[in-house]
Amino acid sequence: MKKKPVTGMKDVLPEEGIIRDYVTKLAGETYSRYGFMTIETPCVEHIENLTSKQGGENEKLIFKILKRGDKLDLGNIQDEDSLVDSGLRYDLTLPLSRYYSNNSQNLPVPFKAFQMGSVFRAERPQKGRFRQFTQCDIDILGDPTYLAEVELITATTTLLGRLDFSGFKVRINDRRILSALAAYAGVEEDKKGLLFIILDKLDKIGADGVREELESSGFAGDSVDRIMEIFSGDALKEDPLHGIKEILGEHIPEGCAENLETIMTLVSQVRNADFEMVFDPVLVRGMGYYTGTIFEIEMPQFGSSVAGGGRYDEMIGRFTGTPTPAVGFSIGFERIITILLEEGFKVPTEAPSTAILLEKGLPAERMKEAMKEAAVLREKGSRVLLVWANKNKKFQKEQLSKNGFEDFKEYYREDLKH
Amino acid sequence: MKKKPVTGMKDVLPEEGIIRDYVTKLAGETYSRYGFMTIETPCVEHIENLTSKQGGENEKLIFKILKRGDKLDLGNIQDEDSLVDSGLRYDLTLPLSRYYSNNSQNLPVPFKAFQMGSVFRAERPQKGRFRQFTQCDIDILGDPTYLAEVELITATTTLLGRLDFSGFKVRINDRRILSALAAYAGVEEDKKGLLFIILDKLDKIGADGVREELESSGFAGDSVDRIMEIFSGDALKEDPLHGIKEILGEHIPEGCAENLETIMTLVSQVRNADFEMVFDPVLVRGMGYYTGTIFEIEMPQFGSSVAGGGRYDEMIGRFTGTPTPAVGFSIGFERIITILLEEGFKVPTEAPSTAILLEKGLPAERMKEAMKEAAVLREKGSRVLLVWANKNKKFQKEQLSKNGFEDFKEYYREDLKH
Repeated sequence: MKKKPVTGMKDVLPEEGIIRDYVTKLAGETYSRYGFMTIETPCVEHIENLTSKQGGENEKLIFKILKRGDKLDLGNIQDEDSLVDSGLRYDLTLPLSRYYSNNSQNLPVPFKAFQMGSVFRAERPQKGRFRQFTQCDIDILGDPTYLAEVELITATTTLLGRLDFSGFKVRINDRRILSALAAYAGVEEDKKGLLFIILDKLDKIGADGVREELESSGFAGDSVDRIMEIFSGDALKEDPLHGIKEILGEHIPEGCAENLETIMTLVSQVRNADFEMVFDPVLVRGMGYYTGTIFEIEMPQFGSSVAGGGRYDEMIGRFTGTPTPAVGFSIGFERIITILLEEGFKVPTEAPSTAILLEKGLPAERMKEAMKEAAVLREKGSRVLLVWANKNKKFQKEQLSKNGFEDFKEYYREDLKH
Repeated sequence: MKKKPVTGMKDVLPEEGIIRDYVTKLAGETYSRYGFMTIETPCVEHIENLTSKQGGENEKLIFKILKRGDKLDLGNIQDEDSLVDSGLRYDLTLPLSRYYSNNSQNLPVPFKAFQMGSVFRAERPQKGRFRQFTQCDIDILGDPTYLAEVELITATTTLLGRLDFSGFKVRINDRRILSALAAYAGVEEDKKGLLFIILDKLDKIGADGVREELESSGFAGDSVDRIMEIFSGDALKEDPLHGIKEILGEHIPEGCAENLETIMTLVSQVRNADFEMVFDPVLVRGMGYYTGTIFEIEMPQFGSSVAGGGRYDEMIGRFTGTPTPAVGFSIGFERIITILLEEGFKVPTEAPSTAILLEKGLPAERMKEAMKEAAVLREKGSRVLLVWANKNKKFQKEQLSKNGFEDFKEYYREDLKH
């Protein structure tokens, strides 16, 4: 028998469990106030759907499930694909699209979905990254307007605010502005992806670093110059959205920049958490399925993004044949939990915790009294532990204190009063 | 792209989602009051652990996960086993035992664990049975005494009571009484399992049916007579526990019947739900790993058991080498949800629900007002939906009512007051 979890997965200990429960509860409560409704999809998904080129790099990380019974023909194995018919989902967005195409006739329009669930990716094991992790997503399906983005961003930042996060930054961009940038610089279609990946590093490696990488990656000198002119100069310093609009001109589709402006203005006006909303023309986001706005929440003090999302107006159409506007925002649940654990976050508890120590061999009548006392306290909402007293009661109480029991009661054999 | 979920699994719609959230929240809250702590284990488990003969019939129903990378050698396939190194867990008890053996040095003694999670069994698809389903388990590890059983049964019945269930029956037995019965009747070790399976049907097929099955299954006539004497006569009518104790005498280990009596008495004394606690000498429970007390909650009006559990004092020792007393109680989460859905259960909501209808093309200033109003209501705990008004507003409001929005506000373009 093996004692450790399978490679790259983890056991959640009680001190983490209580924080996970709290964040889960707060997410459910907050998102419900924004009209999102809880749904669930299976962890197991059709292999055809998982490998339909919607998942980018994640499709290389799928845990595949062996066919069963007669379907598994070991005498006639062509390749890996002939062995499997399903796999574990790598995110909640692809299953949501399948779900919507399967159930839309029973769902309101627009449909605001809240999902929490395990997803699985066979990544190289490393600190803080796990092969099974929880995602916490909200999505709005059926609304093509800025209202959807505003609601998603407001709901997500409100949740972060309720978890006492502050001073963070919401960055927003639009895939169509990235495309406009490529067109403006004369970058061919098949090199756009590479361009975006390099631009994404601007914050880390600076303008000179980006120029160097673009040159060594074989972009035309003229293209590199046009791009670097934008990011080295002062054009984006003051007001980057208007700056980029002026430079890229008609390469940007009509209304695209105005849409971003509306979102940013409204979010700033109604926000109820302490954060800054900024346009970031080099924000890229990895997933292949994004078609419009993309956004991310960055907490500089924790070194990385804690939430990300965007519009994926074409994915549901791949299931149904009818395009359905869709936009989602996913909180990095595991990242949030790690930060809270590292910061020594204490879950606010409303109820007192009492440990009732029972001497071994307590007569039936006294036992009944102890249990009745526990029942009354529990009925009132207290957390009560009924536990046999150890010989070393002092040590036992110390241990119980560590688990949050600050109030003690004792039931002895001889003592008829307590 | 496939629209339906994989065979035997299901999409959870919002009307079910809200009930699942409610039961989950209530379970967490109730079990926390009893001192249980939330933990999690991965959905994926080592194939060696899953196939270690602890899971009985469930081991035939494992979803197996294909090895990855170099570990998968398609040129050298011996059998199915050579293709897999992990699988999806079929219950939460086996992973808990692994978890405890991996983490016990960081856990309190005794350890009271609460787990909710998905488990997977490739059963033949049938109505109401799914291949992925949620289990909701509480377990007490490290307490060999009746206190553990009393706490488990009291906590579970309290949760059911809080969900408005009443008039149910908690049946209890001990595996050692079943063994005593087999010894008393002179049934050989290797036929005990079959004997128990047949006895388990007593309620359904009656004493005559049991006799018939025992005879046709090749049990010795003398054994059958001795068994049927017990279950056909009046010995168990009045007080079955004392009755069986008298008949089986020294075949029952010392203290075993008294232990059951203590549990039953204490549970009845401190219960805070409407149920009956009964000794049932033919209660068997399927899982191979039970070693002592076993119990089940039956709701006659719903035709089946809604919770089950028992003592499995030997499983953790298989991981650690040191026996650790363990006992658990699992609520049939999906069964409970199905009953609540069928009964038209309404989740008690504390907050009002308001839908704010926005006329398309609303000017920025009015949009801001609408969003501020929503923010204020949400801050107070209301559920607020901001939604574009349709042309047919009457129909739209009807639809919104169905989703629980009873209060409406409207923001028009021309109208500067609302």
